[in-house]
Amino acid sequence: MSNTAMETPTTLPNAQQDTASRLGDIAEPDDAFLIASEQEDNLAPQRRALVVLVTDHPESFAEEANRLVTELLLEGNFQVDAAVTVKSKKSKIRQAIETAVVGGVDLVLTVGGTGVGPRDRTPEATEAVLDMRVPGIAQAVCSSGLACGAVDAGTSRGVAGVSGSTVIVNLASSRAALRDGMATVIPLVHHLVDQLQRYSV
Amino acid sequence: MSNTAMETPTTLPNAQQDTASRLGDIAEPDDAFLIASEQEDNLAPQRRALVVLVTDHPESFAEEANRLVTELLLEGNFQVDAAVTVKSKKSKIRQAIETAVVGGVDLVLTVGGTGVGPRDRTPEATEAVLDMRVPGIAQAVCSSGLACGAVDAGTSRGVAGVSGSTVIVNLASSRAALRDGMATVIPLVHHLVDQLQRYSV
Amino acid sequence: MSNTAMETPTTLPNAQQDTASRLGDIAEPDDAFLIASEQEDNLAPQRRALVVLVTDHPESFAEEANRLVTELLLEGNFQVDAAVTVKSKKSKIRQAIETAVVGGVDLVLTVGGTGVGPRDRTPEATEAVLDMRVPGIAQAVCSSGLACGAVDAGTSRGVAGVSGSTVIVNLASSRAALRDGMATVIPLVHHLVDQLQRYSV
Repeated sequence: MSNTAMETPTTLPNAQQDTASRLGDIAEPDDAFLIASEQEDNLAPQRRALVVLVTDHPESFAEEANRLVTELLLEGNFQVDAAVTVKSKKSKIRQAIETAVVGGVDLVLTVGGTGVGPRDRTPEATEAVLDMRVPGIAQAVCSSGLACGAVDAGTSRGVAGVSGSTVIVNLASSRAALRDGMATVIPLVHHLVDQLQRYSV
Repeated sequence: MSNTAMETPTTLPNAQQDTASRLGDIAEPDDAFLIASEQEDNLAPQRRALVVLVTDHPESFAEEANRLVTELLLEGNFQVDAAVTVKSKKSKIRQAIETAVVGGVDLVLTVGGTGVGPRDRTPEATEAVLDMRVPGIAQAVCSSGLACGAVDAGTSRGVAGVSGSTVIVNLASSRAALRDGMATVIPLVHHLVDQLQRYSV
Repeated sequence: MSNTAMETPTTLPNAQQDTASRLGDIAEPDDAFLIASEQEDNLAPQRRALVVLVTDHPESFAEEANRLVTELLLEGNFQVDAAVTVKSKKSKIRQAIETAVVGGVDLVLTVGGTGVGPRDRTPEATEAVLDMRVPGIAQAVCSSGLACGAVDAGTSRGVAGVSGSTVIVNLASSRAALRDGMATVIPLVHHLVDQLQRYSV
């Protein structure tokens, strides 16, 4: 992703073109750069994620949350296989997660349904799928959420853990909860996926 | 509360009187201020709390803990319906909590009985009443307790969660645990009560 | 331990001998010092710990982890009764912990087997032995581990709690996890042992 602009320099926006011309004629990236960036990709291979948006009001919420989460996952070196929107019902959420686990994604990220309302059933649906809980992840999301003022993250009942060789993480749905939660979760998930892949070889 | 001094300007201490005269003649708050502060009260309505003091040595402990907790709850915008003292026995604690939940209070705050001694049964009694646990609250109490040196809060087995539309929180009983715990817990409890009230309307 | 050098001044390394001679002729500690250090020992009595090293590759790992943990336990005022190495199998781990509990040690510290691999079974084995969990300890280990960059501690599934009058704590096995984990855990464990001893008298 990071060298797309370098490969197609004619599509650079104005500001970047200015910088480029000030730096001299660099129409093409040199070979050393391309090799280096390819090696970087090999060192941190892109992983597959699926997003489950849990909401009873799909339209606007799902679209916005989807855009934000996809952006943050890409930045965190995950490719997003799909973003599925499901009603806040335990059976529906569970089914969506199980399908993703069977599909072999590395990460299932659920958004929403982690509060104390009668329709908040994401933690229960997730627990039913997990083989092992990894409490440190949910805990890090809570305490980091509190620290940054995302009260819905701080009081989230969301869980995290492993099902088969897929990591599953529940996040609350406010923008703050998503931004902070993703920043907290991504390095921990990569560590778990590393562990899981070591054993599946 | 905050405009008491404005309503009775003759009781102002010297420093405040000086400020007041420098600001001009403001013997009476103007209508706009009164309306604004009334609206503020409406935005953060006072909620009802019940305190359960768990102790085998009721006399002095209960009185002091009661005074401190009541003061902190009032500051946190809770009115204290009652403070009940019960022996550290699972059935007694459970009964006290359940009565409060049926009575419809917004918050049941238990104090004491969260350690690892044979008579510490508050977490077990509380779990038996909870519909849902909210782990982030107990967790915030522990980590904040550790940070401020309240070891009994840091090693507390206390839990927190929701029963019906009542939030229940266990705190350890040292003064440090109570002061720090209340400061940590109050904003989170208000957030949960907001959620619960949204659905009960 | 701390006054060994004072009792046998002839074995002092050079740097300490220099300091000693600069301070004058102190061939023998005076009585006041001995009494004071004895009283100190009484105030913080040494406790008994047993270490369970969980690993499928015993040789080098066990030796190094053993040395580090023993050193940190001694610094934390625990004498190490033994360090047992067991295969990463639930029944073996459980047996080692139970033997130590029956033997009446104050602390069982397990090292390793807390990840998400198929052979990581330490948390499950420990839970089977615990009478009560003390979540604040495992939580403090996770969050402190994250803060110091020990990702294996941050994502550890390790638990902590009490069985009989013995405290049991699971730590991950990286050096960082051990160093940071021990620093976090020691004061909390002493607090729990204090509580347990108060009731067992």
